[in-house]
Amino acid sequence: MKLMQLYAAMKSDLQAIEDQMAQTVTSDLPILSETSLHLLKAGGKRIRPVFVLLSGKFGTYSMDTLKRVAVPLELIHMATLVHDDVIDDADTRRGQLTVKSKWDNRIAMFTGDYIYAKALTVITELDKPRIHQILSGSIVQMCIGEMEQIRDFFNVEQSVRNYLRRIRRKTALLIAISCQLGAMATDAPARITHALYRFGYNVGMAFQIGDDLLDLCGTEKAIGKPPGNDLRQGNITLPVLYALQEEGLREQLLKEIGLIRDNEGPVNSAAAVKLVRSSRGIKIAEELADRYIAKALKALDRLPNIPAKRNLADIARFIAKRSY
Amino acid sequence: MKLMQLYAAMKSDLQAIEDQMAQTVTSDLPILSETSLHLLKAGGKRIRPVFVLLSGKFGTYSMDTLKRVAVPLELIHMATLVHDDVIDDADTRRGQLTVKSKWDNRIAMFTGDYIYAKALTVITELDKPRIHQILSGSIVQMCIGEMEQIRDFFNVEQSVRNYLRRIRRKTALLIAISCQLGAMATDAPARITHALYRFGYNVGMAFQIGDDLLDLCGTEKAIGKPPGNDLRQGNITLPVLYALQEEGLREQLLKEIGLIRDNEGPVNSAAAVKLVRSSRGIKIAEELADRYIAKALKALDRLPNIPAKRNLADIARFIAKRSY
Repeated sequence: MKLMQLYAAMKSDLQAIEDQMAQTVTSDLPILSETSLHLLKAGGKRIRPVFVLLSGKFGTYSMDTLKRVAVPLELIHMATLVHDDVIDDADTRRGQLTVKSKWDNRIAMFTGDYIYAKALTVITELDKPRIHQILSGSIVQMCIGEMEQIRDFFNVEQSVRNYLRRIRRKTALLIAISCQLGAMATDAPARITHALYRFGYNVGMAFQIGDDLLDLCGTEKAIGKPPGNDLRQGNITLPVLYALQEEGLREQLLKEIGLIRDNEGPVNSAAAVKLVRSSRGIKIAEELADRYIAKALKALDRLPNIPAKRNLADIARFIAKRSY
Repeated sequence: MKLMQLYAAMKSDLQAIEDQMAQTVTSDLPILSETSLHLLKAGGKRIRPVFVLLSGKFGTYSMDTLKRVAVPLELIHMATLVHDDVIDDADTRRGQLTVKSKWDNRIAMFTGDYIYAKALTVITELDKPRIHQILSGSIVQMCIGEMEQIRDFFNVEQSVRNYLRRIRRKTALLIAISCQLGAMATDAPARITHALYRFGYNVGMAFQIGDDLLDLCGTEKAIGKPPGNDLRQGNITLPVLYALQEEGLREQLLKEIGLIRDNEGPVNSAAAVKLVRSSRGIKIAEELADRYIAKALKALDRLPNIPAKRNLADIARFIAKRSY
């Protein structure tokens, strides 16, 4: 089944999630409804809700239960985006003005706080404290990941291990628990819940590495902004780390990254991007992403052969595809 | 019993809360431990933990249970302070540098997010989903209160009702649930839990009105910064609203507030403060605070006559005292 078909097949359930998200963030304070709905309307792949719903197929599927998992997970993802945009000083995301740009930083901060809190009110409706624990523990890890990213801006001496730990916290964990909690909420057995967590974790790692590759190798159209945005922020991603290990490239790349770091006006990362693209870093990062996808597919082996299993595999394979 | 004696009598339990708070925010990321412990060391009255512990005396007192309520409530209060300092552009709080000033805004934002999330990991250890629900609902209301405050900066046309709704959300609610959840966690009967909520709510209202009065009438030493800080931020508090209703003062006060609003350099609110002090607004606000204290004491009537009841009454009466 192609991905578009999968989304089409899940359309009514995804729409129910979408409606519930809109309802959840609608407040009696117009500005909070406006900022939150502005974010919702920007759309997105809704990959976390898709994973929650598919994982729920391994237990006793119930939209009433699953939306109480899918809605908060996607809202928490959105809240981190709002706070990220403040940090990154980003004016647009997905072609839309960011909250901090359309309103201001103060409003963006409290919009993020508000969406976080609203997400919690939804998940706590579930009478399963273990789920509340897993979620709050994961948010802690995400915050640590965000802070690690700030700490490591322009740190060209960081290790690959460092990068992997950061993206695990920043991205992979929330995707992993989307799968885990979807199954847990619908009372799937522990071994299935665990296998789905492994699947989600590995897909999440591949997803972030792919995203970081896209930022270097994609077209401006595909990315939504000129390539090299991560480098402009000081975010040193996997291909850059590998490129920095290449004898013939290292000195020049260090110089370019230094220029970006010390620049006070509008920053141009085109030269650094070109150097990384010419390196073996791209290929090595691609191979690592592929290995994560292979591990994700392997995690599915333990699951019963229901259609949702094939759907998850299809999504994993789709994520493995390069779009540059 | 005097307040100092009460703190002395509760010393070992409060120290256990303090230790648990420090342990909770200690992360494997040094910067997060540093920023969080910096906040903890700044101290504070720990009024929320005190209320949690005293309310716990009406049920089956257990420090193991109560610290899982007191620690998160105080941490959530701290997290809002960190985010507030970003908004208020505050350089010091309680005589210490703020996180945003000692580090930067980005770090302050994620420190706040991190402390919030850590607070949740502690409370979700309690196997009582209803408590998780009440807490997350209250955080939502607090965020709405923060946003209302931004919206109402320099709004001289807002009603007293508006002000009261804002401080209910911003301050009174967290104090109310400190009392409520302390009793609920220790399985006190519903009528006691409810009475304690009413007590905390009314004390919280009086507390915030008192704080707003102090900012106008206190000495620089008592406040920790020159009086009129709220006015410099554009935060129109109760005495100001009443002063604005006075025929002979309104025009001049409006002019002064307009000057503060339009000023681009360092702001001086001394003239506006003087006008408000000369108004009947001070007395009317004091009387309203007293009425909330009276209501708080009345809520205690329904409680059994244990020492904690007298302690709560003592705290309420202490809050009623003016220190200017």
